[in-house]
Amino acid sequence: MITVPVDLGERSYPIWIGTQVLANQIEKARELFPQWKHAYCVVDEHLDGIFEKMSGELQTHGIRVSRFTVSSGEASKSVDQLNALWNDMLQQKVDRKSILLSVGGGVVGDLGGFAASTFMRGVRFIQIPTTLLSMVDSSVGGKTGVNLPQAKNAVGTFWQPSGVMIDTVHLGSLPTREYASGLAEVVKYGVILDAAFFNYLEEHAMELLARSPSSLEHVIRRSCELKASVVQKDERETSGLRAILNYGHTFGHAIEATTAYGRYLHGEAISIGMTMAGYLAVQRKLWNHQDFDRQTSLLERLQLPTKLADSVSTDSILQAMQLDKKNEHGVLHLILPTRMGHVQSFREIPSVEVAGAIDRQRR
Amino acid sequence: MITVPVDLGERSYPIWIGTQVLANQIEKARELFPQWKHAYCVVDEHLDGIFEKMSGELQTHGIRVSRFTVSSGEASKSVDQLNALWNDMLQQKVDRKSILLSVGGGVVGDLGGFAASTFMRGVRFIQIPTTLLSMVDSSVGGKTGVNLPQAKNAVGTFWQPSGVMIDTVHLGSLPTREYASGLAEVVKYGVILDAAFFNYLEEHAMELLARSPSSLEHVIRRSCELKASVVQKDERETSGLRAILNYGHTFGHAIEATTAYGRYLHGEAISIGMTMAGYLAVQRKLWNHQDFDRQTSLLERLQLPTKLADSVSTDSILQAMQLDKKNEHGVLHLILPTRMGHVQSFREIPSVEVAGAIDRQRR
Repeated sequence: MITVPVDLGERSYPIWIGTQVLANQIEKARELFPQWKHAYCVVDEHLDGIFEKMSGELQTHGIRVSRFTVSSGEASKSVDQLNALWNDMLQQKVDRKSILLSVGGGVVGDLGGFAASTFMRGVRFIQIPTTLLSMVDSSVGGKTGVNLPQAKNAVGTFWQPSGVMIDTVHLGSLPTREYASGLAEVVKYGVILDAAFFNYLEEHAMELLARSPSSLEHVIRRSCELKASVVQKDERETSGLRAILNYGHTFGHAIEATTAYGRYLHGEAISIGMTMAGYLAVQRKLWNHQDFDRQTSLLERLQLPTKLADSVSTDSILQAMQLDKKNEHGVLHLILPTRMGHVQSFREIPSVEVAGAIDRQRR
Repeated sequence: MITVPVDLGERSYPIWIGTQVLANQIEKARELFPQWKHAYCVVDEHLDGIFEKMSGELQTHGIRVSRFTVSSGEASKSVDQLNALWNDMLQQKVDRKSILLSVGGGVVGDLGGFAASTFMRGVRFIQIPTTLLSMVDSSVGGKTGVNLPQAKNAVGTFWQPSGVMIDTVHLGSLPTREYASGLAEVVKYGVILDAAFFNYLEEHAMELLARSPSSLEHVIRRSCELKASVVQKDERETSGLRAILNYGHTFGHAIEATTAYGRYLHGEAISIGMTMAGYLAVQRKLWNHQDFDRQTSLLERLQLPTKLADSVSTDSILQAMQLDKKNEHGVLHLILPTRMGHVQSFREIPSVEVAGAIDRQRR
């Protein structure tokens, strides 16, 4: 089992990564929190097996276990679901000595984290991500939230977990599209922060598609390290640094919103978004065409889409992009690559250029 | 205009106190936040006059103004109202350069503060308390929240305001019961932290009832200073120190919950709660009877109730007390006075003693 530390002063926490290591991870968490008496588990509806195993382990340590089941899918990241969760936490007598455990993908992690950060003004929580996407991205860094009907993640908090338990064994049963969706964020880390890591991904694309445990462990570890390095320097997205993690996301979120979160998985939308952002960077002569092509080619080899369906209008994407949190009073800001492993924030990008980049990526 | 600084490192902020000083306060805030472009105002339904004046001042400074009206009363501190507020903020294009202004009493302050802390994972907000209770208590210290049907303030955040604008001119029109309700928290500061301040209150009870501007300014300033001194040492209620501010509140919240937040104002319930806690302290030989009598007598001179209606059962109060956030796994913790100006936290207090203290305070 590898431990990646996230160093945030009094809010520091460990990420434990390994295979078949749930029992070890619970043992470690028990040592960190000797007063832990109650585990309130927010669990994806399809994860009975993991929950049962976890519940047994927790009870062995004398910890009372409660469960709240969440339907799979983005629709569960709603204010209604949050309200139901809050009320159930009250019913189950969650208090400040309880720890909330989010067991599932990003939806369960974001919803559970938001509930933890706000119930009684904050209780501890541990992330147990079971999808590749949540392992390499949403479970690390302390962003929580739910969607409003008009905007994804419109409300939420910065609330660091007390620990992240990553067991690659969960990835064996992940559907192909969901697995590939996680790889999109992995590619993102290479493009924005680490050219050597991007090379590694190019060289190990086949192993990754085959879900080889050793490549997976390396890729998850490196992604977590890279994300932690950014979060440590700009925890609350105030200096602008953390915004680099949003490379491809302003386009991606708009694609998801415009297609009602139904047509593309998050990572698929990000893959298309990175391609649009990359193209825009090439057009602005910020990035060379060769690296842009390497990005497109790697995404495609990893079975990710890079082109947008014709039925989705460019105007609708542009309009949705206006609502992005990085904007200030309607002026569009974007993260664009300048060389492999490096991106910068650019302000006041003309809509016509953005529209051009969207139009270009059509299948 | 007096400024009381609240020193919380990067989350420090000023409390501006004076009479007829709204324009000055907005001027000061403008200097602190030169990039401020949009004021999103959450306003109590009865405060049209204050809002109009404020809105004019803000527009003079080139600040766009939006308004969200909240019905008076505790019922507005609901998840439904919060959801409506979040959606309206999205509609009004609130972003991280906007500042939310809460204009009203504790309900508007807590609701607005919670919305500010969670919208786009946090925007700035300024408290403009218009009741004595919110001036001396809820607007300072960064506690925000809404109620769940079964428990007051069950969800919320710690989110410091960027400034607090207190104008005592608002107090002139406050109904007698509401005004007295604020005085209950003022008396609390004397009992828990400052015997000299308690003496001052005894000596100036008549002036305070007459709402004399000079006594009011002193009392609000000293209350804010005392609260700030506690919050500075224990911002997130982790060391246990901040819990002393909850003197009388475990009883008080239970009284409010049991009577469906309809029979007693918050300060009235706290006045009864302090009397119960004080009596319990005397029974446990922690506090002398003379100081307990001084507390009761001062509360009564300030037109506050100290006895509970017979129709409210002791059992229902006891049961509601079990849900208090300070408890850990059902064991009751209480803040009790040990001498005038000093309180301590006591653990595992037998229910039978608590029941005795409730039974004693009957009219």
